[in-house]
Amino acid sequence: MNEPIRDRLVTLRRNLHRHPEPAWREFYTTARVVAELRAIGVDELAVGPDAYDPADRMAVPDTDIEPWVDRARERGADPALLERMTGGNTGAVAVLECGDGPAVGLRVDIDALFIEESTDTGHVPAAEGFRSEVEGTMHACGHDVHMTWGLAVLEAIKESDFAGRLVVFFQPAEETSGGGCPMAKSEFAADLDYLLAVHVGLDHPTGEVVAGIEKPLAMCHVDATIRGTSAHAGKAPNEGANAMHAMGTAIENTYGIPRHSDGMTRVNIGRAESGTASNVIAERAHMEAEARGETTDLMEYMKDRLARTINSAATMHGCEAEVDVVSESPRADSDPELQALVSEIAADVPGTEHVLPAADFGASEDATFLMNRVQRDGGLATYLIVGTDHPDSHHTPTFDVDEASLEHGVDVLTETILELERQHPVPHVNTDSVNAEGGA
Amino acid sequence: MNEPIRDRLVTLRRNLHRHPEPAWREFYTTARVVAELRAIGVDELAVGPDAYDPADRMAVPDTDIEPWVDRARERGADPALLERMTGGNTGAVAVLECGDGPAVGLRVDIDALFIEESTDTGHVPAAEGFRSEVEGTMHACGHDVHMTWGLAVLEAIKESDFAGRLVVFFQPAEETSGGGCPMAKSEFAADLDYLLAVHVGLDHPTGEVVAGIEKPLAMCHVDATIRGTSAHAGKAPNEGANAMHAMGTAIENTYGIPRHSDGMTRVNIGRAESGTASNVIAERAHMEAEARGETTDLMEYMKDRLARTINSAATMHGCEAEVDVVSESPRADSDPELQALVSEIAADVPGTEHVLPAADFGASEDATFLMNRVQRDGGLATYLIVGTDHPDSHHTPTFDVDEASLEHGVDVLTETILELERQHPVPHVNTDSVNAEGGA
Amino acid sequence: MNEPIRDRLVTLRRNLHRHPEPAWREFYTTARVVAELRAIGVDELAVGPDAYDPADRMAVPDTDIEPWVDRARERGADPALLERMTGGNTGAVAVLECGDGPAVGLRVDIDALFIEESTDTGHVPAAEGFRSEVEGTMHACGHDVHMTWGLAVLEAIKESDFAGRLVVFFQPAEETSGGGCPMAKSEFAADLDYLLAVHVGLDHPTGEVVAGIEKPLAMCHVDATIRGTSAHAGKAPNEGANAMHAMGTAIENTYGIPRHSDGMTRVNIGRAESGTASNVIAERAHMEAEARGETTDLMEYMKDRLARTINSAATMHGCEAEVDVVSESPRADSDPELQALVSEIAADVPGTEHVLPAADFGASEDATFLMNRVQRDGGLATYLIVGTDHPDSHHTPTFDVDEASLEHGVDVLTETILELERQHPVPHVNTDSVNAEGGA
Amino acid sequence: MNEPIRDRLVTLRRNLHRHPEPAWREFYTTARVVAELRAIGVDELAVGPDAYDPADRMAVPDTDIEPWVDRARERGADPALLERMTGGNTGAVAVLECGDGPAVGLRVDIDALFIEESTDTGHVPAAEGFRSEVEGTMHACGHDVHMTWGLAVLEAIKESDFAGRLVVFFQPAEETSGGGCPMAKSEFAADLDYLLAVHVGLDHPTGEVVAGIEKPLAMCHVDATIRGTSAHAGKAPNEGANAMHAMGTAIENTYGIPRHSDGMTRVNIGRAESGTASNVIAERAHMEAEARGETTDLMEYMKDRLARTINSAATMHGCEAEVDVVSESPRADSDPELQALVSEIAADVPGTEHVLPAADFGASEDATFLMNRVQRDGGLATYLIVGTDHPDSHHTPTFDVDEASLEHGVDVLTETILELERQHPVPHVNTDSVNAEGGA
Repeated sequence: MNEPIRDRLVTLRRNLHRHPEPAWREFYTTARVVAELRAIGVDELAVGPDAYDPADRMAVPDTDIEPWVDRARERGADPALLERMTGGNTGAVAVLECGDGPAVGLRVDIDALFIEESTDTGHVPAAEGFRSEVEGTMHACGHDVHMTWGLAVLEAIKESDFAGRLVVFFQPAEETSGGGCPMAKSEFAADLDYLLAVHVGLDHPTGEVVAGIEKPLAMCHVDATIRGTSAHAGKAPNEGANAMHAMGTAIENTYGIPRHSDGMTRVNIGRAESGTASNVIAERAHMEAEARGETTDLMEYMKDRLARTINSAATMHGCEAEVDVVSESPRADSDPELQALVSEIAADVPGTEHVLPAADFGASEDATFLMNRVQRDGGLATYLIVGTDHPDSHHTPTFDVDEASLEHGVDVLTETILELERQHPVPHVNTDSVNAEGGA
Repeated sequence: MNEPIRDRLVTLRRNLHRHPEPAWREFYTTARVVAELRAIGVDELAVGPDAYDPADRMAVPDTDIEPWVDRARERGADPALLERMTGGNTGAVAVLECGDGPAVGLRVDIDALFIEESTDTGHVPAAEGFRSEVEGTMHACGHDVHMTWGLAVLEAIKESDFAGRLVVFFQPAEETSGGGCPMAKSEFAADLDYLLAVHVGLDHPTGEVVAGIEKPLAMCHVDATIRGTSAHAGKAPNEGANAMHAMGTAIENTYGIPRHSDGMTRVNIGRAESGTASNVIAERAHMEAEARGETTDLMEYMKDRLARTINSAATMHGCEAEVDVVSESPRADSDPELQALVSEIAADVPGTEHVLPAADFGASEDATFLMNRVQRDGGLATYLIVGTDHPDSHHTPTFDVDEASLEHGVDVLTETILELERQHPVPHVNTDSVNAEGGA
Repeated sequence: MNEPIRDRLVTLRRNLHRHPEPAWREFYTTARVVAELRAIGVDELAVGPDAYDPADRMAVPDTDIEPWVDRARERGADPALLERMTGGNTGAVAVLECGDGPAVGLRVDIDALFIEESTDTGHVPAAEGFRSEVEGTMHACGHDVHMTWGLAVLEAIKESDFAGRLVVFFQPAEETSGGGCPMAKSEFAADLDYLLAVHVGLDHPTGEVVAGIEKPLAMCHVDATIRGTSAHAGKAPNEGANAMHAMGTAIENTYGIPRHSDGMTRVNIGRAESGTASNVIAERAHMEAEARGETTDLMEYMKDRLARTINSAATMHGCEAEVDVVSESPRADSDPELQALVSEIAADVPGTEHVLPAADFGASEDATFLMNRVQRDGGLATYLIVGTDHPDSHHTPTFDVDEASLEHGVDVLTETILELERQHPVPHVNTDSVNAEGGA
Repeated sequence: MNEPIRDRLVTLRRNLHRHPEPAWREFYTTARVVAELRAIGVDELAVGPDAYDPADRMAVPDTDIEPWVDRARERGADPALLERMTGGNTGAVAVLECGDGPAVGLRVDIDALFIEESTDTGHVPAAEGFRSEVEGTMHACGHDVHMTWGLAVLEAIKESDFAGRLVVFFQPAEETSGGGCPMAKSEFAADLDYLLAVHVGLDHPTGEVVAGIEKPLAMCHVDATIRGTSAHAGKAPNEGANAMHAMGTAIENTYGIPRHSDGMTRVNIGRAESGTASNVIAERAHMEAEARGETTDLMEYMKDRLARTINSAATMHGCEAEVDVVSESPRADSDPELQALVSEIAADVPGTEHVLPAADFGASEDATFLMNRVQRDGGLATYLIVGTDHPDSHHTPTFDVDEASLEHGVDVLTETILELERQHPVPHVNTDSVNAEGGA
């Protein structure tokens, strides 16, 4: 890739970086991606409800959608597209049809985080003028890079002699595990021979490629509300049904859910609040929790125990609990054959200094929905990492990437797709699977 | 009292009702009271730092003071007075010197509550146009009536042949137990022979007078912050020091502080929050709690145990706790002699239909600081209630009073003060007590 | 009472002291009491199932009854009586019919405690050779004195010119609140005009009489068993249903049952055990608890919350709980008329140095069943205390009494009964109440 | 091995089975083993304090030692040996010196469990008359087989042409993790080139050999006592320092110790008791707990957190805690070279039907002390399993073995030792390590 192309990548990434939007509110972002796709020219382009069934979405926010539509409109997003995304149906899928050959999927995610980006002059986006223009929201996990890769790879493949089909998923709501499921259940996920999901960084330096992650934890997000009865804490504490006390009991016992013989489990109540004033027995408590497991079954075990714990705590204190699973993602493993192929190809790509065949993940990702779907249909999937020198951790106000990784990532992905066509290690997948569930 | 006077009381009360201000932010209110006092003409008038030592204040808010100054200024409050009250030193004390005779104190409170007043047409202030003009703030406990009484009694005594000294305390921050202590420690509280503290309503109907309350609970407000270390809940929960878990342990054990053989105790954590997101081990938790006791010692017992519980919970989870006593009020009992005298006088005041010598209180009040001060100095004190038909409970959006009680209260208080001069049941109090502590 | 009589009281008390027996196992004790009653000569003598309905008994031990029968037999108890008491139906009721006049009940209790009596030479029973002969069991609450009083008063009344009926209840199982209910439901408790229940000591010195106790707490004893599933703690903790963890949750939350606006409450888990070995998830936990309240309703409130707490804790951890109310006693108050009469009479009895009309109790007593029964039928009841200098607290290994109180107690009780006949302050009670329930 | 030899093995195992003895009380057992060793003839024989430093022992019982000495004496144990083992210094080490060659250690354990052996006729030991003669104690984990192997292998090696040194450790107190440490610290553990530790069964059938276990969990046993102050639960609960409540808090929070990113952890409170009676605030609580980890560091993490949890719970409730680590065992891994060699040899031994190179362990073993010692000195170690058809699980009343495994185990071990001499894969270990610590 020559210098002008590198510049275009940087420009595109910085533009996206300036306009971070949270899960299911990626209106400007989707519009911008679609504009790029139209400029490149693709054979099929599905936006929002054309890309997936809105009913399959998870963790859709109840409120705070319209202000984001307004902002996108003010910044010049195509009004017709905004109309198409009404209700938070963001994201898009682009397809290139290049003749007979394997069907390859590439999944990139597009949402940002509720983090206030640093204004420190040592923070490059602040120093060089592409810091977030949306107060309290930031691309602090590199999804701006992922989108840039998705667009550039698509363009590169289009210009290559690739024979086959390329489907690029611009998935919303990864941070809340909300967008993986609808994408995986869509028709675009059917009949894929290969799926590549990709992440930048994750503590791997510029030049390092990880060909496949291992042990991503299956995960669920749970919201719980406990409803009791308020009372005056001095005059008649007995007349209350103390949601605060029930919450305390739930917290105490949640962390004590037994460890499991089948493997690693995790549970956390990461956000909790209850009550209004010190002299009132609290009538309501709200908790945001998550449970994880080394396998999907282990996650289910934790989720069931979490719900039982909260429900019993509420009953104990005369309250009622509502426990909602907001979203969840299954476990998926990278296929060794695909990991091997990626290792081999990545090693020869300019800019690669080190290849790791595999690395433990230790966290969760809803790309696993798509991976599971492809694997169930007989295809191969892997989740690969393109390293980047990042000055601070993901999900912090000073997260940033080494932009040299932009071109490196495009090359690794493009070369892998081209080689997949050449080698085509699996026979074409079962085409009867269109109706298969993408979820766990 | 003739009709025009009754109208003046109603007008004054309604004006004050329209301008509710929260604890230590009674800028407009104080300015308005001072304006009335200047119109009446008093011998000594101390505002804010002249009325008490600002360092003795409790539960002073860290923020949100300036906007209230601005509002008061916009509404026409005297800029010089606002300047005098800089930093939230609100409230005032007025003194009438009427020759040789007993020194009588009258305490009224002036702050409002963070409650949004009802717009229902059945709610008289809404129907008749004197609903709160400050969004989210309301005189929902009748302090507007108390101030009106304080001003009208002062005027009535001035016009009477009363011989002695009358000190009227317009105390800020009763709702947060923050203003009683500084008033009690001030020079104005020294050398009082009698103290009358008064409340309207409290479930007693119009025409009923309670000559003294019994068993007000001693009380303290406690703020606690637990600080730990955040960590990724999936990748490394062990690296965190979980403030959420410590909070759960603290909640669980706080309610279990042992009941006490010496009498009634209460404890509540009424507001708690912790954490930022479900996948992060919480690094901080905040709790707002209160403890009460039938005696000051019992309140101290509960407070000590509460602090120990929170501190140990923090230690258990590798966190640190900061437990602050925001404010507190001791127990004080009404003096039987004074209760008897009030009973006798109130029975003869026009408008009185029923007199109760005493009633249980079951809640807390920081007038007890002043009562204790006067009693320690050898004087007599009582906390009396002038009933009113109130359509809904105190501290609700539809609380209101029967304005017939305005005149009734003025009469009960004025007649009591006049009779105290006539009977003067106690010899003049110890004048060496100026430096006595007003607090617990 | 002359010297020989005093000696007889001492001899009798010391004999009873040497043979302490626990609740529902007072075989030797009942036999000894019956032998004395036969020597005195009474008009009706009912033992065990003739004195009450065995089905009304509470807190009957499942095991450990036979060894006590055997011990009693070895010590010479009448085999026919032992046969009559089969299954732990101990205790007796004796009736004197002395012509027309009021019906007076006197209740004394007969059981001992599982306490190992001191062998210290400073402990009089040890020094003078009447220490308990039953290892691990002791009359450490003065019931040996109560029985002595019951017998001596009966003899004194028989020899007097008393006209009326005297019913003396020798009640078993007071310490476990197990015997009060059956006695109260029996025909002997019907139609009583007056009831005197009596206790020695309770921190009142020799010569002091308390004419009536106030505020005995209503109380219940609760046994709870939690059953889960064991598992290997290292290999598969998730396969267990952890009764230990459920017990921990139950303990934590039991102490936090809300304080009540209506008055004093108490709760305690005083004995708990769970599990077998450190490497096994516990499959069973057992707890012995009690709940008390200033009123019977408050006790019921605590009992209900205790049960709910334990049940919810079990559910939370996948276990099942069984919560049994082993026994309970209601609240009862002494009648003021009777207190006044006892005060008056006691003041004139030789040996009385001080009379208290009333004293707070602060503990529980199942004599309240009998008191409630008599009061419901229209009679008067009081619970009086005859003081004694006791060197150490009740329920300790070095508890003892001042034997001068033996004669004093007999005199107070006898004179009260005689005076009740003379004054007879209430009309004869409703005779239709035979079937009234004695319990709460 | 010919038929008479097989009979001898069965006879020996059954004799040992009839005389089970618990940890540090293996008096008869040691005496019996020593008698066999004397009959075989060994070059060095160290019993009790000659085999290890008694101060290095862990989990030594405070009481209940003498009755076991008496029983052993009654059954004919050598009084001089019993004298040598005074205080519970049981166990022995036997050494064969067979010229120049490698030094090989073989570790077998000798203690039994507190389990009442089944009397069911389907249980072979009951049916064939060799059921435990010690009520409540049973060889329910196959240590009778291990000892038999130890003796028979020693005899077989003695009769072979083996050149080198063979050290057989007859280790007491494996079940309580108490005997591994002293054995590992002894001079006999120095300078070993190879160590074989062996177990029968563990769910592997007759004919199956596992050449090495993986991931035995590091483990510790912890005893904790909480001391508070008792009080009357009705009269003055506030005067107590409630050890019961502290125990509840400790239980609740122990299970919630965070999972660890470095691997598997376990924690359990398997036995707890507190209090004396329902109406007494408990003054004492006792808990028996364990903590495990996939590595020794993880076990230490859990142990530290467990101690902090219990200490903080005690402090919270005004109590004091004493937390004692009764015993602990580190993690150790089998050496791959040795596993490979055992696999190869075992495959050729008659009776072997299947060889597993490795198996997960999932539990804990204090043979790891010896393995760590040998590995630190430069030698190789493995923990191997000789399968047996066992009708019920280890640690149950109906555990038994297939006696065909007796001969098979002897052959596997003997052939492995002989082959180690032939191949001698490691150079002789560092001889400077005599003072190296055996413990963690």
